[in-house]
Amino acid sequence: MFIRTTVAQLNSTLGDFERNMKKVISAIEIAENNNSEFLIFPELFLTGYPPEDLILRTSFLKKNIEYLEKIIDFSSGKNVVILLGFIDIEDDAYNSLAIIRDGKLLGKYHKMHLPNYSVFDENRYFKSGNEIAIIDYNNIKIGINVCEDIWSPLGPMFYQAINGAQLILNASASPYFYGKRELRKNYLSQKSYDHHCPIVYCNMVGGQDEIVFDGGSVVTSADGKIMFEGKPFEEEIFTIDIPIEDNLRTNLHDPRRRYINIVNDKQTNYIFVKNENINKLKPIKHINTNYSLTKEEEIFRAITLGLKDYIQKNGFKKVLIGLSGGMDSSLVAAIAVEALGNKNVVGILMPSMYSSSHSVEDAKKLAENLEIEYHVIKISDIYYSFKDSLKEIFKETKEDITEENLQARIRGTLLMAVSNKFGYIVLATGNKSEIATGYSTLYGDMVGGFSPIKDVYKTDVYKIARWYNKFKGKEIIPENVFIKPPSAELRPDQKDQDTLPPYEILDEILKLYIEKELSVDEIIKKGFDKDTVKYVAKLVDRNEYKRRQGVIGVKVSERSFGKDRRMPITNKYREW
Amino acid sequence: MFIRTTVAQLNSTLGDFERNMKKVISAIEIAENNNSEFLIFPELFLTGYPPEDLILRTSFLKKNIEYLEKIIDFSSGKNVVILLGFIDIEDDAYNSLAIIRDGKLLGKYHKMHLPNYSVFDENRYFKSGNEIAIIDYNNIKIGINVCEDIWSPLGPMFYQAINGAQLILNASASPYFYGKRELRKNYLSQKSYDHHCPIVYCNMVGGQDEIVFDGGSVVTSADGKIMFEGKPFEEEIFTIDIPIEDNLRTNLHDPRRRYINIVNDKQTNYIFVKNENINKLKPIKHINTNYSLTKEEEIFRAITLGLKDYIQKNGFKKVLIGLSGGMDSSLVAAIAVEALGNKNVVGILMPSMYSSSHSVEDAKKLAENLEIEYHVIKISDIYYSFKDSLKEIFKETKEDITEENLQARIRGTLLMAVSNKFGYIVLATGNKSEIATGYSTLYGDMVGGFSPIKDVYKTDVYKIARWYNKFKGKEIIPENVFIKPPSAELRPDQKDQDTLPPYEILDEILKLYIEKELSVDEIIKKGFDKDTVKYVAKLVDRNEYKRRQGVIGVKVSERSFGKDRRMPITNKYREW
Repeated sequence: MFIRTTVAQLNSTLGDFERNMKKVISAIEIAENNNSEFLIFPELFLTGYPPEDLILRTSFLKKNIEYLEKIIDFSSGKNVVILLGFIDIEDDAYNSLAIIRDGKLLGKYHKMHLPNYSVFDENRYFKSGNEIAIIDYNNIKIGINVCEDIWSPLGPMFYQAINGAQLILNASASPYFYGKRELRKNYLSQKSYDHHCPIVYCNMVGGQDEIVFDGGSVVTSADGKIMFEGKPFEEEIFTIDIPIEDNLRTNLHDPRRRYINIVNDKQTNYIFVKNENINKLKPIKHINTNYSLTKEEEIFRAITLGLKDYIQKNGFKKVLIGLSGGMDSSLVAAIAVEALGNKNVVGILMPSMYSSSHSVEDAKKLAENLEIEYHVIKISDIYYSFKDSLKEIFKETKEDITEENLQARIRGTLLMAVSNKFGYIVLATGNKSEIATGYSTLYGDMVGGFSPIKDVYKTDVYKIARWYNKFKGKEIIPENVFIKPPSAELRPDQKDQDTLPPYEILDEILKLYIEKELSVDEIIKKGFDKDTVKYVAKLVDRNEYKRRQGVIGVKVSERSFGKDRRMPITNKYREW
Repeated sequence: MFIRTTVAQLNSTLGDFERNMKKVISAIEIAENNNSEFLIFPELFLTGYPPEDLILRTSFLKKNIEYLEKIIDFSSGKNVVILLGFIDIEDDAYNSLAIIRDGKLLGKYHKMHLPNYSVFDENRYFKSGNEIAIIDYNNIKIGINVCEDIWSPLGPMFYQAINGAQLILNASASPYFYGKRELRKNYLSQKSYDHHCPIVYCNMVGGQDEIVFDGGSVVTSADGKIMFEGKPFEEEIFTIDIPIEDNLRTNLHDPRRRYINIVNDKQTNYIFVKNENINKLKPIKHINTNYSLTKEEEIFRAITLGLKDYIQKNGFKKVLIGLSGGMDSSLVAAIAVEALGNKNVVGILMPSMYSSSHSVEDAKKLAENLEIEYHVIKISDIYYSFKDSLKEIFKETKEDITEENLQARIRGTLLMAVSNKFGYIVLATGNKSEIATGYSTLYGDMVGGFSPIKDVYKTDVYKIARWYNKFKGKEIIPENVFIKPPSAELRPDQKDQDTLPPYEILDEILKLYIEKELSVDEIIKKGFDKDTVKYVAKLVDRNEYKRRQGVIGVKVSERSFGKDRRMPITNKYREW
């Protein structure tokens, strides 16, 4: 016995009901044509995820109901049972699944476990559901639930399983970070193994502001194996025949569930579906898939997708990048070409009196290797005209960081001028090590509309760049960019390491301080130099105001700056 | 019979445990010296509020326990019962009150109702308490609770009252917006009237990033009258003898509570306090207070406090303001002088070739009236040097908004250069109408560390300025600033109204769209011009990316940009 399920791992566009509906309709057609019994979409597919404060607009909620009704109408005459994420409105708003078949809304499920941590704010928007949902399909019980529901140690899946569910369908919008894909597969595998119940986990794919959904939907078998994995970072509609074990047989075979002694005080909503059309489906052959990517490739692809979707969903076409000849801007340019094509990437070289000749050469070489348009604008004349205008007010002062920031801000202003004139969007090129420590100029190198590598530590920037050249099979990012010491080139012979600890050490400290939330003392106890740790912690804490005005970019780590880490600016708590 | 209570309406500094502890100690001394029976502090006074993601650091939580223990030790030999807000850590973190007396922790209360809307994110940080707390004080029942608890239609106060509580002590950190003070007084008054129970509502005072706590603590009597109101926007420690009615008498007199028929399924934690020292206290005479401020004064004072605390708590002394001779920068300069003193405010005039002579004159006159230091830096030479450098890349293009933004960004860069050189912090001068519609230049006039009037609509900016001159009893902001038409002066004869609808209309539409969340159709139905409404909605939606990189400033409206309104940037939902 099997149940034929189509998983629509698609890219939803926030608020674009028309476009999202079209995707739903074409997926229904595919599922119907191949005799699927179920069709599942990602969480809140109809609206896009996360709609944030749009949910506080009743007009937005009503529009989502309007489109749900259009889709229900379209399903008329179709046999497949459709699970579609939408926002239900009753007394309040609910993160919901509609169960649709043949022009009818058979039932609704309201998500019970609302995540309100990390990048999530679901308690801000939704009321929790209080009813488990089980579809009784030709006498087979199928539990349905939404994203976080399945991550609870005692969520609806638990109750569905003890009520005899033989298949779980979960609609998710699970944000990517490095490590999540492995975690997710292991977790779902364990849940299936425990409850002896296959899971169809349909994940969103695509970028939405700071978040990338990585797809990689998962189908597990009743014994906890990964039967199928959707493509990472790509849209995919796949149909799979999921073997359903007889419930008695599985309980006899794996009796651990017998010993569960829990008061089942949850209300359960049964939705009955009788499907007499599905009788003698010939099983589809399918190939087990399991995508294993290196860390470098995974992060590169996550950023590429996040960037592409940000640019295209916001109606831009071309991007503008200040090319310094350094590693960060080189990698960002490479990612941009990958995401948007070389015709849509424009480089601007803005050498100053402190720029080394190799920087200009390296940047030109990169642009030529990537086959992108580039321009050179020298900044020294502008710089001297600023100096001249500030002469009076700066008399009796010495040169300091002011003059360094000035150069960065002239560059920022030039990039924005070109952006304004031609309608290209500027990409900021800062990495996470830099943004964490404030080693960057607000309104200078921090300008832009999107910041692709803002969540990538400098040491990883090098690794990804190295992987990229290998992936392309040739030296796109010039070798000299790898070997020269990192420098902002804002004063003669400046090196990053004049101001910051070596990146290998800095990045380790940052990870412990930011991602693991270890205290300064705890980090020192791990063997790092006391003064270095305190200095790094101080830099991180002191630069919250800069980050608050920073550009958004893709989350690829467990804890990214932005919605994921909400620190006060005014903060007198000191561990340094 | 009365209970003598001291209300410590004080200004907590986030994370500054040492400073907060000192304030606690001096309040304990005052309360003890005047034989107070109870002493109450605002919500989370020990840590400051809101600590945001600092709560995710175990080291921060442990530090707060350390300081709580120091305060408990200090209370040794003291008779007063102290209610102090701190973060309790057991299995999880709780927003809590410590009940302290004579060197002992008598009990703890965990906040039950956690707000997770508007600027609040308490579900992100805390587990809800599940136990009502009542102090049995010499056989008088006193209910204690925290902030949101009292705002629930069926919160702990309800259960405390039906359990016989004769006094409620509430520790709050209630953010200011215009209208909140009236709302709060009416609400507390009604609650007292319903439950025939006086309330001591102790509110925080002071600024914390986007939020200002306005003080204005309230004491109500059992019949719902406001007995006492703490000063708005100022620290104050006041002691009041609160008359306690006999519970039987009040039930006979106002029997509405007899008819309440509810299952009291809440666990209640009774904390017993026997105070034999308090016998024959002579009642303190006190004067009823009730502060009623005009809208203009209230907002002015809220911003002044918010600005002052931001500057001082972040260790700055002087602020820098670009003075254009327009109304926004004039009002910001006046607020800054009020908050920080004229010696700590520096104006920079940056005229361009498009600046009218009256603008420079008006700005100079303002600076002279405020008696602040000012400097003039002309921007035309820098502008032409940019134009020159961009000549090649801009060939065959026409002048457009690029050149306007360029001027604004030169000014931003100059302000930041002076800021960097002297360590002054730049104040951005944008108003809410401008920020809503994106009528401002990112990295130009939007630069700065704090944005005092960002939540004030342009029409209110004029009203507050008018009030200010009257309040000062002379023309500080020059009359010409009031009468000339608003202009960015970025091209010849430019007026704001060339681009935007008249501010009287614009602001009404913005309020309906942003604060009331009405749809475009609903606003049009109220009688506004269709095209105007659509144009305004489009401007608001399209400028989310600018606001995301904007400077923080004080929330003074029911819905401010920032933590209070979290809109996606990538958003294809259109009502226009």
